[in-house]
Amino acid sequence: MSVAATDRRHLLGLEGLPRGEILSLLEAAEGLQDAASGRSDARDRLAGRVIANLFFEDSTRTRNSFNIAAIRLGADTIDLTGRGSSVSKGESVLDTALTIEAMGVDALVVRSSDAGAPAMIADAVECSVINAGDGCHEHPTQGLIDLLSLQQRWKDFSGRRIGIVGDIAASRVARSNVHGFTTMGADVVLVGPPTLTPASFEKIAAGPGRVTVSHDLDAILPEIDAIMMLRVQFERHSPGAIADDYRARYGLTRERFSQLRSDAVVLHPGPMNRGLEIDAEVADDPQRSLILRQVANGVAVRMAVLTRCLSRR
Amino acid sequence: MSVAATDRRHLLGLEGLPRGEILSLLEAAEGLQDAASGRSDARDRLAGRVIANLFFEDSTRTRNSFNIAAIRLGADTIDLTGRGSSVSKGESVLDTALTIEAMGVDALVVRSSDAGAPAMIADAVECSVINAGDGCHEHPTQGLIDLLSLQQRWKDFSGRRIGIVGDIAASRVARSNVHGFTTMGADVVLVGPPTLTPASFEKIAAGPGRVTVSHDLDAILPEIDAIMMLRVQFERHSPGAIADDYRARYGLTRERFSQLRSDAVVLHPGPMNRGLEIDAEVADDPQRSLILRQVANGVAVRMAVLTRCLSRR
Amino acid sequence: MSVAATDRRHLLGLEGLPRGEILSLLEAAEGLQDAASGRSDARDRLAGRVIANLFFEDSTRTRNSFNIAAIRLGADTIDLTGRGSSVSKGESVLDTALTIEAMGVDALVVRSSDAGAPAMIADAVECSVINAGDGCHEHPTQGLIDLLSLQQRWKDFSGRRIGIVGDIAASRVARSNVHGFTTMGADVVLVGPPTLTPASFEKIAAGPGRVTVSHDLDAILPEIDAIMMLRVQFERHSPGAIADDYRARYGLTRERFSQLRSDAVVLHPGPMNRGLEIDAEVADDPQRSLILRQVANGVAVRMAVLTRCLSRR
Repeated sequence: MSVAATDRRHLLGLEGLPRGEILSLLEAAEGLQDAASGRSDARDRLAGRVIANLFFEDSTRTRNSFNIAAIRLGADTIDLTGRGSSVSKGESVLDTALTIEAMGVDALVVRSSDAGAPAMIADAVECSVINAGDGCHEHPTQGLIDLLSLQQRWKDFSGRRIGIVGDIAASRVARSNVHGFTTMGADVVLVGPPTLTPASFEKIAAGPGRVTVSHDLDAILPEIDAIMMLRVQFERHSPGAIADDYRARYGLTRERFSQLRSDAVVLHPGPMNRGLEIDAEVADDPQRSLILRQVANGVAVRMAVLTRCLSRR
Repeated sequence: MSVAATDRRHLLGLEGLPRGEILSLLEAAEGLQDAASGRSDARDRLAGRVIANLFFEDSTRTRNSFNIAAIRLGADTIDLTGRGSSVSKGESVLDTALTIEAMGVDALVVRSSDAGAPAMIADAVECSVINAGDGCHEHPTQGLIDLLSLQQRWKDFSGRRIGIVGDIAASRVARSNVHGFTTMGADVVLVGPPTLTPASFEKIAAGPGRVTVSHDLDAILPEIDAIMMLRVQFERHSPGAIADDYRARYGLTRERFSQLRSDAVVLHPGPMNRGLEIDAEVADDPQRSLILRQVANGVAVRMAVLTRCLSRR
Repeated sequence: MSVAATDRRHLLGLEGLPRGEILSLLEAAEGLQDAASGRSDARDRLAGRVIANLFFEDSTRTRNSFNIAAIRLGADTIDLTGRGSSVSKGESVLDTALTIEAMGVDALVVRSSDAGAPAMIADAVECSVINAGDGCHEHPTQGLIDLLSLQQRWKDFSGRRIGIVGDIAASRVARSNVHGFTTMGADVVLVGPPTLTPASFEKIAAGPGRVTVSHDLDAILPEIDAIMMLRVQFERHSPGAIADDYRARYGLTRERFSQLRSDAVVLHPGPMNRGLEIDAEVADDPQRSLILRQVANGVAVRMAVLTRCLSRR
């Protein structure tokens, strides 16, 4: 028995999430912008609820974005990170999740290096489970953030073409993006070294959008409306595995930026390696870089997701 | 000058705590069950109070249980753990405690690998001190949790016989259990390898209950009403010290479980080593395993303790 | 473009802060004493505001003092420490700060081993930046704490003479103290080994107070009204660099304490190395040691600073 993508108690991935559900989450996030930045007060929404961050793999950025989202909704949070936690005493992931649920928490925000861990937990618990990134599988809130950031610019995804550049095979962001973008009607072109950009990704497109694979970044620059630069994950690769010429072949340099359409926008899920996958001038472009916009949208999107999953049933 | 067990400002151990005090804490915890799980709101009880977790030895599980208890009572918390704290700069335990008290906190929840550290701190400070586990000495809130979990099943402890199995000598849980169970009138049989189960424990019984020591788990299975399986502490023993045959001799296997009385219940303070001191099927028995019940009771018990210790004097 | 010392949105150092500003902060801190200790409720002051502790170098003591200050004012906090944070993934300090600001936080409390990091961040962000210690530069809230602790004893700084003893060159506390004490009209004598007590410090005096340098602690004891003992920073020096005779030459032993004027007071920013730079009997003197008073003042001072910086503009 596994949890359906449409079970509103959880958010495990964008795969299988219908267009209407995505639109509803984006609309909710848009409506929460003021509350996300503290310009209005939404602290009665989840007052008295307790949300546990269960981060078997730490991520300060994502964890704090969820924490601020919870704070802005009036919920309380507890943090469990891999280091120094029961996990390091050999307790199983499932026992840890069941234990934290038994303490009376309303939602588990789960980050894990194991693909499928949040789904496995959701099968076992009664409370809400939100996937905050699981291995090479999905990072659905990041996918929604990227959708919201582009929708604020475009209004509509149909006819749009989005490039995603980097280590596609290892990227949960790429996978959530592909599901999200194609469900909304955009086409996606995946760009990276052959070993990191499997052709099998062409088959995971959902809905009307199509997915193609390319190994030539320069060739696709003039054809795309947005480019998502993935982070080079030094943590996951030995230094030798990332060739010295990565920037030369796949970096979004100032020169490549000038080959994009004049209204094409740039995204990056962060944290950035400036000067490697993206040049500083590109990252900081005041009109066309959406990178800080993505971060700001992160809080609103996570507020929308928490509100959806924690509505009294 | 040392703090009396009956000083309601602190909870340092179950040794010396009168039966009436224990009953009153269990009754308070029972009354806080709804608030512990968020079904009712008790956030006005300790609103504006600040509780510091002073964990010289980390324990995610206990710390978060205390944190949720504080949250449910409306208190705020700060976490100080050994790693990266002033402790690692060579400051003494007492200076750290005095410093945190001087910041205006209302209670210190202290965890330490040194037996007696919480009592030493309680002697020096004006604020409340709650022992969250000190070396091989006591873990009084865990003792209360186990009492509550059994009382919910039995109503009365007199005439009951409880087995505690494992590394008794090193176990603060066993020590608090012995004090609590015997004060409430139950008999206790301690079971473990001879080197880890000192006969001197027979002398620490309080009140009407008696304590005996056994090295033969199979022999006592048919005689007991409850069995508490202690965690094998890999952190404290070199691998060789735990013989490979631990499970064969002292594990609560499925076979041994079938030798218990049909209404005997199973407890474990967690985190479990499934397949070592306890088999998975036993741990997950829906009727007779109280393990997740213990976790849930943990929040209510700690709410009762915090409320007692922090009542305006 | 750099931030002016008088920009009330930030607190980057005491250098350049006018006497009137300092007096106003000390007065505000004095007025917040009851709220700091929980005897009165000021939680409406910053309700709904979010403050991020951005500690590239951890300090449990300072971080928790800021956290309690925020709690007492009703603000929420998030903690980002160097370990396990985005920083360790190679993200720049500035990108981390911009990212956290983009999440909608109202203030960044910054601790860094790099002198100037808070000022660099303040140049780049719109939200408030408070320096919680940067390298060998400044630790302005500690400077204000020491001023408040002395003002509570003296009422007035003019004609007072204060000794600061230890590794002056590496001490951000000493630097903030020199700016603060001299601005308020006190004279300062810096005492330490020649290599650690540069004569150049004599030139940084502000306002009416004068700064002199000495290498002979015994000679100045009868002349001073207060003595600030700096912590020997084992973290920063190799063991050999701190000569075994440090205590003999520069420790505030019981014997030296008896050479002070009978009303001279003792300060230490903590955490202390008892028996090294200060004897236990001196640190614990109930009348003349202000050390726990400094800690208690820490919360009130940080509440005053947060309130000043976060006033709606």
